[in-house]
Amino acid sequence: MISSLLSRSSFVRGAARGFTSSAVSLDASAKLNKPARFAQPISASDIPKGFVVSSTYAGIKAAISPKPVDPNTSASSAATSNTNPKPDLALIVSTVPAAAAGTFTRNVFKAAPVVVSNQVLLDGANKEEGARVQSVLVNSGCANAVTGTQGMQDTKSCVELVKKHLAPHPGLAQNSEGRETLLLSTGVIGVPLPMPAIKRCIPHLSNGMILRSDPESWRETARAFMTTDTFPKLRAKTFKLGGQDVRMIGIDKGAGMIHPAMTGPAVPAAVSSGQLHATMLGLIATDAAVQPKALQVALNRAVSRSFNCISVDGDMSTNDTIILLANGQSSPTSHSEIDESSPDFEAFVTELTAFCQELSKLIVRDGEGAEKFVEITCTNAPSYAVAHGLLSRLVTSMLFKCAIHGQDANWGRILASVGGADPTLTKDVDAGKVSVSFVDPSGELGGVTVLQDGNPVKVDEAEIVKLLKKEDIKVVIDLKNGQEDCTYWTCDLSREYIEINADYRS
Amino acid sequence: MISSLLSRSSFVRGAARGFTSSAVSLDASAKLNKPARFAQPISASDIPKGFVVSSTYAGIKAAISPKPVDPNTSASSAATSNTNPKPDLALIVSTVPAAAAGTFTRNVFKAAPVVVSNQVLLDGANKEEGARVQSVLVNSGCANAVTGTQGMQDTKSCVELVKKHLAPHPGLAQNSEGRETLLLSTGVIGVPLPMPAIKRCIPHLSNGMILRSDPESWRETARAFMTTDTFPKLRAKTFKLGGQDVRMIGIDKGAGMIHPAMTGPAVPAAVSSGQLHATMLGLIATDAAVQPKALQVALNRAVSRSFNCISVDGDMSTNDTIILLANGQSSPTSHSEIDESSPDFEAFVTELTAFCQELSKLIVRDGEGAEKFVEITCTNAPSYAVAHGLLSRLVTSMLFKCAIHGQDANWGRILASVGGADPTLTKDVDAGKVSVSFVDPSGELGGVTVLQDGNPVKVDEAEIVKLLKKEDIKVVIDLKNGQEDCTYWTCDLSREYIEINADYRS
Repeated sequence: MISSLLSRSSFVRGAARGFTSSAVSLDASAKLNKPARFAQPISASDIPKGFVVSSTYAGIKAAISPKPVDPNTSASSAATSNTNPKPDLALIVSTVPAAAAGTFTRNVFKAAPVVVSNQVLLDGANKEEGARVQSVLVNSGCANAVTGTQGMQDTKSCVELVKKHLAPHPGLAQNSEGRETLLLSTGVIGVPLPMPAIKRCIPHLSNGMILRSDPESWRETARAFMTTDTFPKLRAKTFKLGGQDVRMIGIDKGAGMIHPAMTGPAVPAAVSSGQLHATMLGLIATDAAVQPKALQVALNRAVSRSFNCISVDGDMSTNDTIILLANGQSSPTSHSEIDESSPDFEAFVTELTAFCQELSKLIVRDGEGAEKFVEITCTNAPSYAVAHGLLSRLVTSMLFKCAIHGQDANWGRILASVGGADPTLTKDVDAGKVSVSFVDPSGELGGVTVLQDGNPVKVDEAEIVKLLKKEDIKVVIDLKNGQEDCTYWTCDLSREYIEINADYRS
Repeated sequence: MISSLLSRSSFVRGAARGFTSSAVSLDASAKLNKPARFAQPISASDIPKGFVVSSTYAGIKAAISPKPVDPNTSASSAATSNTNPKPDLALIVSTVPAAAAGTFTRNVFKAAPVVVSNQVLLDGANKEEGARVQSVLVNSGCANAVTGTQGMQDTKSCVELVKKHLAPHPGLAQNSEGRETLLLSTGVIGVPLPMPAIKRCIPHLSNGMILRSDPESWRETARAFMTTDTFPKLRAKTFKLGGQDVRMIGIDKGAGMIHPAMTGPAVPAAVSSGQLHATMLGLIATDAAVQPKALQVALNRAVSRSFNCISVDGDMSTNDTIILLANGQSSPTSHSEIDESSPDFEAFVTELTAFCQELSKLIVRDGEGAEKFVEITCTNAPSYAVAHGLLSRLVTSMLFKCAIHGQDANWGRILASVGGADPTLTKDVDAGKVSVSFVDPSGELGGVTVLQDGNPVKVDEAEIVKLLKKEDIKVVIDLKNGQEDCTYWTCDLSREYIEINADYRS
């Protein structure tokens, strides 16, 4: 069944899971052709100094899968027009200990790698020099969640293996303090990591001859993150900080079970279980020099306006993690690091926030079954928390997402959903003041206000439908009850989403 | 387009909306054949004394629809194997002023009939004799929401018209106190009520020769509630109260935009707007004698364990309303009414709660696109609010609902969703204590525990799939952290739901 489908469905998401793609979803994928449009090359000059990466095909999914897996179609490599086996294990290494920050899912049922990485950053934060790490090990195909004590042991074995094999490298930190390793895992859940395969590959990945910093190596590393993603999510940029060029590179992944709500390192909850799939993972590396505590503050602020403002299907994963490393190698000789009092701190936060928004939007673009990209702004709210909370409810509305999918100007569903949010949020909404508009993000078609100060505006529905027929749609909800704004990004709800999440295992 | 579809789609939900039914949804409807299974006849002996009803086809949808509507297929009359035009206007009258209670949506954007009915009960509650009303006017086809000041005027005109035309009846209350009328509206939104059609029909509906109490008249009244419902939702029963027979009859409607969270009469919010469709409405009448304030307490308790514990698609309507009337005509000569201190009060609450649960489950059975009926119990919770809050989140999980639809034993999605609930709820969840089981509600197949005290149990997935292949599915989540329980009812998420809510207007 599965193998017979692969050739047919190898150009659409989920080929690795062998779900039956209907004509509808094939058409949609063909129409959108996401890989060609969003898998952008990066320039070598934008890659931060002092970071090297390696990746390989360890056969993780095959090792844990009851059914044979064709590596050529594992995850969506076919969609990336690459016939090599898609890498599923990668190592990102800083040549010097890097200041580290992270945000993690607040889900009560956290996966083992989340618990361990969270603890590493917590321990570091309690030290004088703050959290500093050397490397990040990434695997896809097995999320190492629902794996209880075994999962915790395996995670710690991975950390020790990486530290052991990186140790001999000249130039790498020799003091144990800076040699910590963080972990990012995604994929099938409820089964332990295939340790033999991983143990076999870590020495190879840690080899100085393999670790490289060229664009192709970073692209392969980005592919190692992918599960049901249809394209590798990789971006890089150069920007000025204190008059000097610094570089930033970022990878993320995610397509389903996307509605993150992450916080900084926190006292870990007990590990527990589930048979999940898909998650949001992100790694951002910069050669700017930022003091670890300031780096965490910057990441918290950036994530609150980016990764914590996207939703594909309203479900929060047990593995959501964003890691940020800053190794200061843009000026190796200088030993000064930006802290919160530095004049460059706000500029860094601004650049980081814009970069996180670009990365997080790629996840919405690649949302399971998504054919529309919707930006929603709640403006003039009494607080950011209220604006964010109301939008966080709206983006989970099946009726709203179906209307967007059907290009149906059924804007009342926006009010019904927002109006049904938690009373602690809606108590600040004055129904008689609210205005709602549809806007063309490209500016071409302008916009249409459908509700003005709580009163419906007589509009030509055809005008709204023109806006809804576009792939990119913008909605503005004006509460006229404060000065705070929040912007959220989401997608539509389509039959293909049902196929991906209901049928592929049937 | 629409008319050409009617013949083809007249046997499936939404014929009136003329959406294109795919082979998939036709098969599903055929397979489930809800009308035949759930449209049960009632016995004349179960109909409470002192209530009379009338209904008619006023052509409300046709009057406000830009496209011609075929009354023979208006809403789902075809599905009820009845070729008469489906009634869309009905009047329920108590021959004496009846104690009245109600619960209303807490949505910030309330429809005009909700605001007016809420106010009638509020005013009554402030009087010595409490809230008492004579009649309830029900219309489908136009929800009279998003209609601003016009909507409020129309609603009040309806009230005055009904009171004027009922006044001359011998036996009906002549004092203005007890002659109030409540309103229930559902249907297309954003357009005012077609008052000419309604004004023409109200004298007819108020005619003593038309008002009847036989089962067929009640069934036609139940059909007048329907919009996208595939069958009339009508139940009646007789039970003992204080050693005496009392009767209770109930009608409700709803299929989409179903995730009610209602409260008793409250200070009304401003009326506002939206272009919505579908809503939950309910009317319950009993000839028991219950004091109005006690009746409201009883309804609040019953609704908190029934109508407020169902979800089809997680969206809360602006029109959700449940009305309960008690006219004491089981013993017309007695003038004593049950109050909260009465020994019969708890028995009444128990009977009412069971009846409300039966009615609310009918809505989930008829959920848009639903092929599965899922009962989920959260047990051993620290409080009812925590258990209800966690389940209220789980039942909106698209991933969970897709897994149920695909008969996919992907139980980790339950934990991911519950674990992602608001921290004020999850703070009381100890991931290391939680157990999850799938149970066969019929008892035939027993059950399978998949998670025990936070640890996955090695189970034969085929055993779970056996349970998931049934139409009725039960899930038990044991928090082992308290003594409180809550049970929620929901359905699966199917392609037909997308068709109904995305495509029918395309």
